[in-house]
Amino acid sequence: MPRRLVVIGGDAAGMSAASRAKRRAGDDIEVIAVERGLWTSYSQCGIPYWIAGEVGTEDDLVARTPDEHRRNGIDVRVGTEATELQLDRGRIAVRDVASGDESHIEYDDLVLATGARPVRPPLPGLDAEGVFGIQTIDHGRRVLAALATRRPMRRAVIVGGGFIGVEMAETMLARGLHVTLVSQPPQPMSTLDADMGSLITKSMEGHGIDVRNATSATGFEVDQTGCVSGVRIGDELLECDVVALGIGVQPDTSLAVDAGIEVGDHGGIRPDDSMRVADGLWAAGDCIEVHDRVLNRWKHTPLGTHANKQGVVIGVNVTGGSATFPGVVRTAITRFVDLEIARTGALEDECEGLDAASVTIEATTHAGYLPDADPMTVKLTFDKPSGRVLGAQIVGGRGAGMRINVLAMALWSRLTVEELMMTDLAYAPPFSSVWDPVQVAARAAIAARR
Amino acid sequence: MPRRLVVIGGDAAGMSAASRAKRRAGDDIEVIAVERGLWTSYSQCGIPYWIAGEVGTEDDLVARTPDEHRRNGIDVRVGTEATELQLDRGRIAVRDVASGDESHIEYDDLVLATGARPVRPPLPGLDAEGVFGIQTIDHGRRVLAALATRRPMRRAVIVGGGFIGVEMAETMLARGLHVTLVSQPPQPMSTLDADMGSLITKSMEGHGIDVRNATSATGFEVDQTGCVSGVRIGDELLECDVVALGIGVQPDTSLAVDAGIEVGDHGGIRPDDSMRVADGLWAAGDCIEVHDRVLNRWKHTPLGTHANKQGVVIGVNVTGGSATFPGVVRTAITRFVDLEIARTGALEDECEGLDAASVTIEATTHAGYLPDADPMTVKLTFDKPSGRVLGAQIVGGRGAGMRINVLAMALWSRLTVEELMMTDLAYAPPFSSVWDPVQVAARAAIAARR
Repeated sequence: MPRRLVVIGGDAAGMSAASRAKRRAGDDIEVIAVERGLWTSYSQCGIPYWIAGEVGTEDDLVARTPDEHRRNGIDVRVGTEATELQLDRGRIAVRDVASGDESHIEYDDLVLATGARPVRPPLPGLDAEGVFGIQTIDHGRRVLAALATRRPMRRAVIVGGGFIGVEMAETMLARGLHVTLVSQPPQPMSTLDADMGSLITKSMEGHGIDVRNATSATGFEVDQTGCVSGVRIGDELLECDVVALGIGVQPDTSLAVDAGIEVGDHGGIRPDDSMRVADGLWAAGDCIEVHDRVLNRWKHTPLGTHANKQGVVIGVNVTGGSATFPGVVRTAITRFVDLEIARTGALEDECEGLDAASVTIEATTHAGYLPDADPMTVKLTFDKPSGRVLGAQIVGGRGAGMRINVLAMALWSRLTVEELMMTDLAYAPPFSSVWDPVQVAARAAIAARR
Repeated sequence: MPRRLVVIGGDAAGMSAASRAKRRAGDDIEVIAVERGLWTSYSQCGIPYWIAGEVGTEDDLVARTPDEHRRNGIDVRVGTEATELQLDRGRIAVRDVASGDESHIEYDDLVLATGARPVRPPLPGLDAEGVFGIQTIDHGRRVLAALATRRPMRRAVIVGGGFIGVEMAETMLARGLHVTLVSQPPQPMSTLDADMGSLITKSMEGHGIDVRNATSATGFEVDQTGCVSGVRIGDELLECDVVALGIGVQPDTSLAVDAGIEVGDHGGIRPDDSMRVADGLWAAGDCIEVHDRVLNRWKHTPLGTHANKQGVVIGVNVTGGSATFPGVVRTAITRFVDLEIARTGALEDECEGLDAASVTIEATTHAGYLPDADPMTVKLTFDKPSGRVLGAQIVGGRGAGMRINVLAMALWSRLTVEELMMTDLAYAPPFSSVWDPVQVAARAAIAARR
């Protein structure tokens, strides 16, 4: 009998684990993946762009369908919800979502890849028609259906100014709606320091968005048809025809918690660096916490990049190999229309207890004498005693954002600002200045250390 | 009396040294910079784009004029050619280019930043009107004057397929000329392996360029007015109205050699990592050889990025500080129209003596389901026994090229392909795929090591 690997969750982490294990062990392993929804291996991050009309169909967001996984020898069971982990019996209870039939699946190894769920604050009217989360393909379908059928569709309110909020603001602009963005923090993108976030507010306002920072939605108005007609912020009513929620996500660990598995301060499972939770039990993806290599702390950083790597690590380790996930530096990027927004490592605000300082420099995306050079701002945070880079944030025009990877690599290898200044980065006038903006920032940091 | 620093050469390396020394030491140092031409601190790399019409005027290419340097307290003497180093007397001989007057300048510290000179093979007709080097602002002026006044201007031949050759091919296309490119190596861009260079040939041919690889110019036809009318390659005559030369450069070390300073295999001075050649004698920029951190060999890598850093190192060290230039990994980038071309580290062809292997992968510049994703090719060369990254080459659409910096940083910190696969790079659909193309290449390398 082959060993049996059971995976709960059919997206990045789960299917990476399943695929890697099957590819390595072939007939020596039986792989079963259960997924509550109907989709596998799809790009959550692409959903705002699909709603905006930039993606052909939802099929384009799917990297690998259930049938494709099946052809690779994985027993994918969509529409199947895991309802209980029975760890002491080596099995899970599942329910067929359509029929309600219940059954059990035994395992030798179990992978928890249950993902994250959107935060849904207990606000009146939250369940009204037209108030949308933006996490699954079904969510995207519902928004597209509403945009296509409910006329007139004029005003959108985005609740939340994080990645999804910023991306949905762009999406709703692209769909021709007037957009109001409500952000509880003092600026959108609280994964950036507020001084950098203010550049996003400015850009949004330049595109006609009504940005309401440091404000919370307190409820939703619902019309006679059951549709949302406004968002309340304190005494004010923001009239609207559609609401997109982007208030963040939290690890979906209810199955794990019910089974007595410990979770961390952020609510995520904490596997070791081989992604092992206990003997025969593994976890990966948005349901876990990860080791932040810069701050040496646990963080919840729900990103597909990590989920895929963690899945591969499990796939190797459950098939007799040896792999580790080395942690993260929390690199992330997004875009608001023509503004690129990127971050890596620690915010200045996160450096309490360290003797940290920051510098902020202005540069251009490439040689300023070429006509299409755009402004860009780099904020670099560093440890004053050692000079070690602690974090960076970039906001700027086309070509600015992906420079964050240079800083992510500097963090990865624990470079100092002095070392960063001397690294050998690419230069030609259509791409950069002779001192790349990240090195201009490093020079400013060196000057600030004197 | 303040110490006196004399700098020979008024571009990146020399003026960086001068500026940094003056800023650090103020009135405690006298800084004299002699420059044969009339310009200081200008962007050589911008000249093709200026000729193409993308830059306003030549002034835009000048980062700092002689007068601006003078206002910072540097005694800049343009139109002044150093004619002899009299090291044992602590002075140099100079000649005023305009008047021919000769004199001497004494120094406490001397910086050799004499740059590189274009290779000019002894071919018949090389000095004809219309055969242009593309190195100085004067060269650019001459080409622009020819393009403006000599009509009809229909056909250009580019001799040499390196950075300048590829950039001038784009420039001449942009000026509406029919372009033929003559490349002695089997493909353009011999700083890439030939398999990657072939992608450039293909793109050039797609833009209507007549690419003649593995061929050398053997002479130039000159018409009755003294203007070039054709380029001979063997028995064939390529008729043309203008020729741009980009056959490479070599260190301009004639002054140094005449003074008995040793040069290396590539003809460059070999200072130590503090940029010191001898007591009180320093060298930086295109006239020196640099330490290749990957191959642990001396190389001639004439780039403004290095020149500026080396100049800063000298400026620190001549004023009582302590700085070192840590060497290079030979990162470089350019563009041919819409094709981005980048490289770092060792070519596969340079790895003799190592147990190296390469993988080549195809990817897209960002999520393939977005409409403007372009193809990109990554070639990754690695040490088979250790997995250490040895080099990388990228050719692809917009957004492809600057990814080379991730690989440059991996080389800098001597990462293995296994480590590179696990680094935390930025992802969002408009910027990348969930596995960045450089990590797709790393995964292919890992698979190839098994």
